[in-house]
Amino acid sequence: MDLAEEALKGSQLAGARLIRLLEDRDPVGIEGLKALYPHSGSAYLVGVTGPPGVGKSTLVDHIVAEFRRRQKRVGVIAIDPSSPFSGGAVLGDRVRMQRHATDEGVFIRSMATRGQLGGLSRSTYETSVVLDAMGYDVIVVETVGVGQDELDVVDLAHTTAVVSVPGMGDGIQAMKAGILEIGDLFVLNKADLPGADEAERQLAMMLQLREFGEKDWEPRVLRTVAVQEEGIVELVDALLDHHEYLGKSGKLAPKSEKRDFHFFVELLRAGASEKILKTAERSPGCRAVIEDLKAHRVDPYSAAEALIERLQCEI
Amino acid sequence: MDLAEEALKGSQLAGARLIRLLEDRDPVGIEGLKALYPHSGSAYLVGVTGPPGVGKSTLVDHIVAEFRRRQKRVGVIAIDPSSPFSGGAVLGDRVRMQRHATDEGVFIRSMATRGQLGGLSRSTYETSVVLDAMGYDVIVVETVGVGQDELDVVDLAHTTAVVSVPGMGDGIQAMKAGILEIGDLFVLNKADLPGADEAERQLAMMLQLREFGEKDWEPRVLRTVAVQEEGIVELVDALLDHHEYLGKSGKLAPKSEKRDFHFFVELLRAGASEKILKTAERSPGCRAVIEDLKAHRVDPYSAAEALIERLQCEI
Repeated sequence: MDLAEEALKGSQLAGARLIRLLEDRDPVGIEGLKALYPHSGSAYLVGVTGPPGVGKSTLVDHIVAEFRRRQKRVGVIAIDPSSPFSGGAVLGDRVRMQRHATDEGVFIRSMATRGQLGGLSRSTYETSVVLDAMGYDVIVVETVGVGQDELDVVDLAHTTAVVSVPGMGDGIQAMKAGILEIGDLFVLNKADLPGADEAERQLAMMLQLREFGEKDWEPRVLRTVAVQEEGIVELVDALLDHHEYLGKSGKLAPKSEKRDFHFFVELLRAGASEKILKTAERSPGCRAVIEDLKAHRVDPYSAAEALIERLQCEI
Repeated sequence: MDLAEEALKGSQLAGARLIRLLEDRDPVGIEGLKALYPHSGSAYLVGVTGPPGVGKSTLVDHIVAEFRRRQKRVGVIAIDPSSPFSGGAVLGDRVRMQRHATDEGVFIRSMATRGQLGGLSRSTYETSVVLDAMGYDVIVVETVGVGQDELDVVDLAHTTAVVSVPGMGDGIQAMKAGILEIGDLFVLNKADLPGADEAERQLAMMLQLREFGEKDWEPRVLRTVAVQEEGIVELVDALLDHHEYLGKSGKLAPKSEKRDFHFFVELLRAGASEKILKTAERSPGCRAVIEDLKAHRVDPYSAAEALIERLQCEI
């Protein structure tokens, strides 16, 4: 039996191996993904993002537990941008989640941002397709919301929860420019800290000013104290409200379509540019341009433009 | 007079505007870059990388001051990955550098990792070409070494200094897999903290084990206490030793060539894939595949492969 079949029958081991093969761009992994794809398309993707130290991992841990109480199977894709340097904290976070380790209804996958050939968003997309096809109802993508790569990842989710804590002050101001526009829910974690009311007021105010986002979904601010499991039920309710809203307003399918299409364009782009680079290597005109470039006789811009000008293509 | 000419005559204002136009992918910026390119090629690029909290900004501040004492003009490209959330600390770091603000021999440019169309490494490359052409002798690129994008940036430098602090323990272990292989110098900052000897021993041991890197350059471990300006002179000496080593061993020019070539390939890739996507949009066969994709009748992999198979190109 092949990996895709085993994964479809529920083997976490087979799923994990497939994901690893995909990360390595192994053709066996890609064949597996193609086999799984028709079985995907029903999972609910939740993005949980926020700066380091706001307690995302603990929050995700409890979100997972709450979804389990509601009989949902849950996948977690935890993206760990600090991996090359991770100072122990991140490992500790992962360990905390190990209470789900013996639960067949939970699949946890950590990803470093390094060594993901083809980028983080591709790996996250592929992993989500695998988990989706394996029948995980909810897939939580946990990520530090910094860097374009990371934001691309967030963009994959149906619902995005942005996590902050009281006392971020300038931090929240800075968020305004970036992450505010992609949030559907705003979680104020550690809401037992001083300054929670003020922080909630600030968040609410900035949300009133925002001119982007869904017109008919009012972004919500929710308070949690993840370490004490406070506010988790309400948070999961709010996630499901947003999911329901997307379904009822006909926005769920287009979001999934957009994700597939985005990925397709990326693949097309990558494959096409490989083909073109190979063509360029064989072209004497191109080799001459490269010689000029190496000798500093032409700048990279002009060199690339000249070749693109000459490029003829047809599909 | 145009921006490129003004920049060449030393106008920091013109240089800054050109960099901004390039970040916005404005054609005026690109024309400026082409004009500046022939004047570039002599700057020494130093990468300073390491996890948050090791004191990179303070270190860079003092490296700049030391190069100034040696009559070198210095550009700094500070990459701030936490920008969407920056909690004040980063701003504080920038402020610390302001003692160079009135020094015409220093040019400091901060970059967020967000909103850089075309990626961080492209912006860093372009900025370094501008500063290089403007006659800055040394360009220091300061970055948190996380994420592929960031490592691509580090890859642009002639010399890379990896900064850590005593007591990182697991962190250094984790570095092993990632950043160790790209370091030419290893700076143990805050070397007055307990555990410095142990940390230096660990670093030295791991460096002995590494099988990569330049065969004839022995990576060095240097101790600094940046806030007390200790070890800075020795660090700058070591940087210049490495620069000299690259020059004498004939490795300086190939490193620069590689940088230009890498950038050229990226531009060719991007330009070619744009052209192909436009061709694809006009192709009825391609439109049919996209319809199948939207209807979930075909997976993104098979869809992209089918089109790439059909792609004909010529340069």
